[in-house]
This record gives sequence, structure tokens and C-alpha cells, in this order.
Amino acid sequence: MKYCDQCGGTLSLKIPDNDDRPRHVCDVCELIHYRNPKIIAGCIPVWENQVLLCKRAIEPRHGFWTLPAGFMELGETTTEAALRETLEEANARVELQGLYALMNLPHVSQVYMMFRSRLLDLNFSPGVESLQVKLYKEEDIPWDDLAFSTIRHTLRFFFEDQQREDYRLRVGDIVKGRDGFGYISSPQIK
Amino acid sequence: MKYCDQCGGTLSLKIPDNDDRPRHVCDVCELIHYRNPKIIAGCIPVWENQVLLCKRAIEPRHGFWTLPAGFMELGETTTEAALRETLEEANARVELQGLYALMNLPHVSQVYMMFRSRLLDLNFSPGVESLQVKLYKEEDIPWDDLAFSTIRHTLRFFFEDQQREDYRLRVGDIVKGRDGFGYISSPQIK
Repeated sequence: MKYCDQCGGTLSLKIPDNDDRPRHVCDVCELIHYRNPKIIAGCIPVWENQVLLCKRAIEPRHGFWTLPAGFMELGETTTEAALRETLEEANARVELQGLYALMNLPHVSQVYMMFRSRLLDLNFSPGVESLQVKLYKEEDIPWDDLAFSTIRHTLRFFFEDQQREDYRLRVGDIVKGRDGFGYISSPQIK
Repeated sequence: MKYCDQCGGTLSLKIPDNDDRPRHVCDVCELIHYRNPKIIAGCIPVWENQVLLCKRAIEPRHGFWTLPAGFMELGETTTEAALRETLEEANARVELQGLYALMNLPHVSQVYMMFRSRLLDLNFSPGVESLQVKLYKEEDIPWDDLAFSTIRHTLRFFFEDQQREDYRLRVGDIVKGRDGFGYISSPQIK
């Protein structure tokens, strides 16, 4: 960020009054430009013992598999966003069943919200951002070709819980450890 | 938004290729400026049968009561944000116990995430954004002087569940009805 989006003036990093961290403040109109994490909403579309995955036609992670999910838009709810992304990426209609995973990615300032869902019919097909859309049984999931660690952990939790038929909300963080990025259950929740 | 924050060029509203809605696109460098909903994270600090409320020293809703909550910052997790806001607004230390309410406010593109929490000690005091910080029993909650409908509904659910000693996650939306803004359980979740 270099210029004020309201007046075009140059921005300087400074700590505003009554604040505790540097913000981009306009040198001309003094507007403070706040930046905040983004929400990625999506779902786990389930048909019998299978889960619908999408092969990405876009960067990042072109050619890798993911659950339908994407950036929440202004003016919508998280559940609307999850349904919209599922329709856009997989032309799939689902019924949401509840929030299943809330994962923070502080290194990229993202928050994933993944919902459990029931696929309503088999008339799915690749949307413009997908190369392929396919139902996978647990044993066939392309674990080494998943696009994001959030997706890997969401799927892993889902299949664990599915065996017990007891689904519980996971709240955690994807953080860098000794062996790369991994999931930890939220350390602030006791 | 009128100017590109990267090059200072003027912005025009247009629908980018492979997109379905107007974005602010720079006339000079063609950068697309996405805007997304913001997360407000906070908690319900509980001490025995009392809940800690803060009287707001800032606009909006100066002088009205709220639970500690505020905009999530870049680089933090939702749980870290809830703890930080509780410390900033009430100088209060809590232990989070789980996500309790996820409320969408599509008309202002906000998502509230409220956690249940246990107040760890009674050494709380007003932070710079609070006029007063006080423990309230259910019967003394200033229902007519609460700052936001999200706070009113979160507290109402909390006291209902406290009686049953069974706390369940609420996922819903604050939307405009015939009598003003009210809470509805998320219509996308069946």
C-alpha cells in the first residue's frame, strides 16, 4: 500500500493516537487504512461414503485437489459464501449441516470456515476454476496431491469422525513447526 | 475507493475476466482491488454467575454496554484476537472455552466470532476504549443499553444455555425484518 484510495495522497506507516501498531495513514487527508484477515468459506460435500473434490484450474496450486472453498464476498454470510463457492467450483448443490472446522492461518492472515454438507444430487461438473470434479472414497483420496494443508486436515478429521459417527467442531491453527506447516488445536482454548 | 493503493492511478468499477461481479480495477496498472468482510472476535468472560461487560468510551455506541470484542488484526488468530480485545478493553485475563457464536452481519460485511471464557481473576479495569467494566448477573444485565444486537443475542443464548448447563454453538445472521434487525439461525444449515 503506497497511495490513499480516497484522495490519492501518499501513505506513511505510523501509529495513530490510541492505537498500538503501525497503520498506513494518508499524508494528505489523514485517513487510516486498516487491513484485516480474510475469510475463506467452503464445505465438505458428502455423498454416501464419498467426498467431492475439485482439481484446481487456477493458481495457486494449479492441478492439485481441494474442497470447494473461496474468499467470502462483501454482503454475504459465511454459509452463503460456502454454498456459492460449491456451486461456482463444482456446479454442485449441497445442504449445509453445520460448521465443522475453523482454521486460522496467521502467516497469511486467513481464516478458513469449513461446513459439513450433504450433496443433493450427482449433477456436478467442473466450474471455470476447476479442471475436474470427482467423488472420492477415503481410501482413494489423493493425499499427496491436495492443494492446501487446511484441506488435508479437514478431510483427515472428517474421516476420523465419520467412523465414530460423531462430528465435532475443530478450532485450530496452521502454524510452522520443525517439519513445515502443521495443524495445532487452538492453544488459547483450554 | 477512488485511487489504486499501489500506483495511485484512478479506479473504475468493472467486472474482471472470469469474475461475476464489479471490482475496483486500476485504470493504469490494472490491479484488481478486492474487498472482503471483516472478523470481529471477542468473548463472554464469566465469573461464577456473572458476565463481564464494558461500557464503550468510543463511537459507535458510546456509553452503551458490550462484551469485549473487536476487529481481528493481520497476523493473529481468532482466539488470539479475542484474548487481546479482552485485555485491551477490560484489562481482563480469560481462558477461552470454545467458540460459542458465529454471527454474520451481511449488511455491514462483518462476521462476529464470540468465544465462551472463564475470567481468571478480578483484577479488571477499563481499558482506553471503555468508560467502565463491570460484572453483571443475568437479572441485572442492562438489556436496553447494550451496544449491538450481536451482543444482546449472544448474551441471551448464553443465559439460556447456562440454565441447562449445555452450551451449543450458534451459527446465524443478523438481518433486517419487519421490526428492525433480528437474529435468525443460519437458513442454509438444515
